[in-house]
Formats: sequence, structure tokens, C-alpha cells
Amino acid sequence: MKVYKIPEATVMRLSIYSRYLHQLMDESVETISSGEIAQGVGVSSAQVRKDLAYFGEFGTRGVGYKVEELYGHLMKILGLDRKWNIIIIGAGKLGSALALYHGFADRGFNISAILDVDQNKIGTKLGDVEVENLELLEQRVKEANVNIGVVTVPASVAQAVTDKLVEAGVKAILNFSPRVLRVPNHIVLRNVDLSVNLEVLSFNLAFNK
Amino acid sequence: MKVYKIPEATVMRLSIYSRYLHQLMDESVETISSGEIAQGVGVSSAQVRKDLAYFGEFGTRGVGYKVEELYGHLMKILGLDRKWNIIIIGAGKLGSALALYHGFADRGFNISAILDVDQNKIGTKLGDVEVENLELLEQRVKEANVNIGVVTVPASVAQAVTDKLVEAGVKAILNFSPRVLRVPNHIVLRNVDLSVNLEVLSFNLAFNK
Repeated sequence: MKVYKIPEATVMRLSIYSRYLHQLMDESVETISSGEIAQGVGVSSAQVRKDLAYFGEFGTRGVGYKVEELYGHLMKILGLDRKWNIIIIGAGKLGSALALYHGFADRGFNISAILDVDQNKIGTKLGDVEVENLELLEQRVKEANVNIGVVTVPASVAQAVTDKLVEAGVKAILNFSPRVLRVPNHIVLRNVDLSVNLEVLSFNLAFNK
Repeated sequence: MKVYKIPEATVMRLSIYSRYLHQLMDESVETISSGEIAQGVGVSSAQVRKDLAYFGEFGTRGVGYKVEELYGHLMKILGLDRKWNIIIIGAGKLGSALALYHGFADRGFNISAILDVDQNKIGTKLGDVEVENLELLEQRVKEANVNIGVVTVPASVAQAVTDKLVEAGVKAILNFSPRVLRVPNHIVLRNVDLSVNLEVLSFNLAFNK
């Protein structure tokens, strides 16, 4: 697994800033200060400046940031100035929710294929994409130049599916299964445990009393 | 929105450490070094020590940490030494996936109720919990002493639902809708945008080349 030089929390905030800037562009706002960005997304303005400073100087002192320019910079930093092809393995409730999630296409993520082993699911449609047999994994990854594999299968088969994705040539894995996965060093792995989100809340409810 | 003194990324790592320690307990491992924890979860050992140092001294130099003791400490820090009652608003694909997600109960989160406005969904069962009419929101929050509201409704109604949750007495909101929500200062709010997870990957694929 790669070790990130930029803190992951910073990357996640950049993502949030970019959405806020996009909203401002829709409202025809042309310039904005770090304080206004901070207020808009609910962090401190020092945090905004620190996050942006990782990537060089964007703003002009006393004037602030040009909204459209900063948005363009952030999207480029996030790797969102291009399209990414993703494949979803597992068409259960979570895989289906992800397949139908509008937010992905808006940010440049294109769902190339959704695979499952369940004959009752194969052939059904999730949005515009038909659920296909897991046996097509290698073929779909190669022909669509898929960069990112999303794993939403049961824990017992998660490692096997991940190994197949890596062999087929994906460069990054987003793992929703509760299994700790092993991947080669050149693969970017991110584990999403949905209950972690609840734990950030329980921590704050318990700790900040 | 509350400003956290402990970085959110630290809280998320504590959650991951605690899961790894639990796995070690199942394997009857009694002591562990920060280096071993680091290797097990894929961060640096300096990071592990720094994260744990926020909460005082746990380990013994040269001996490491007692697995069960550290696990207990972490669970307490995360607020997981108690049960939390949650209510899910919205029984669409995502709400259903969350309702059926086994990871929540394992970590002490109990789904008290799932509400929707869709007559086709009301009365159906998701696991052990029946989908009920949104009109029951206040009653269900109060009678079950619900602490956390999970919002998986369309953006257009997310703020209205959130206002109702706050009025009914929840202390924290986990928002899966793409809408930026406003909540009073005493409410802990966490926005989950599922595409942010993909963006951490696209950032690393684009940036670390």
C-alpha cells in the first residue's frame, strides 16, 4: 500500500472545497476569501489556507481566490480533470446503491461494468449498466481500460476478487468489505467501513461532552 | 458544527486499530508493539504512537501494548463502550444497504427505526426492522432515545428532514445526501459523500505518478 505524502484528510477537504466552489460558480460568484470558503464548508480559515498551501500559492493577498481558477486547480490536483473507469464487483444492496449513485458521474467516474455471481442478478439493469457474470472480470477490465475496482462482495470472497482485479490490471481498489485486504505495493488501496462514519459521531458525542 | 480537537483522520485510524486488535484477540495474541500494529493496518509506527499519544500513555517501553487493554481503551475513546440508537431516514437502495449492514450492530449501533414516505416501502422489512411512515419521526426518536439520525433522502428534502431530526432531539446527523446541511452548534454533523472515497484514489493515481 502506498504511503501518502499529503494527509488523506486534506484530500477529502479539497474534494469538499471543490464542490463548494462549483456551487459558487453556479451562483456566478467570481472571487472568494479563505474565510468565506471556511465558513461555507465548516472548517477554520487557517485550515483552508494550510490545505491549499500544500500545492503552492493560489490566492492574491487582500483579494482572495478566483473561484473558477481555484476550482480548476483543485479538480486537477484531485485527478478529476480526466475520466476514470470503474468496475463494481458485487451487485447486492450496497453495490446497487453505488451503481445508481449520481455523484460518481458528476465527478468523472464512469461505471464500466458491474459483475456478480448470482444468476438472479445477472442480466438485470442498474441504471444504464447491465449486471454481468463475474467470469467477465478480466475481459471487462482490459477492454474498458478500468483503473479502479470497487469491491462490495462478502468478506469470504473479497481477497480472491481483489487478486483477480489486480491481475487484470486495475491500479486502485476501493474496498467496502469488512476484510483487511492484501495488495501489491504498486496498488492504491482504500478501505471504506461504513460504520467508521458513525464512530466519528459516537467519538464526538462521547468525548466532547 | 463542532470543531474537533482531535483530527478526524486520527479518530478514523483509532477505529481501524480497534478492529485489528479485536482480530488479534480472536487469535489469542496478548501483546503487540506499535510497529506490529502499524504493519497490520498499513500506516507508519510513528503514526500509531502519535495517534495513541493524544489519549495518554498506554504501552510499556520494550514490551508494547497489552492487546485486550488497548482494545478496551480505544473502544471507550470511540464511545463504543455503550449502545447508540440510530434512525435511518430514507429506505432507498442506500438506506436499505445501511439498514442491512452487519458492521453497525458489531460496533454497538442499534437501528431503532427506518422511515420513508413511499407507500410501497412502508410495511416492508429490512432485516428485523420494518420501514415505517416518516410521520412517526418524532415519536420514534423520543421513545427509543435515538442519538444519531442517518439521512439518505434526496437532496431536495434533506434539510427539512434534518430540521425535524434536530427538533425531535437527535444529537448527531450522518448525512449521505449531496446537500450541504445547516444544523445548530450543539449538533455533531458528518457529511458522507461516497464519491470522496473514489477521489482519494484518483488523487493518488494522478498525484503519486
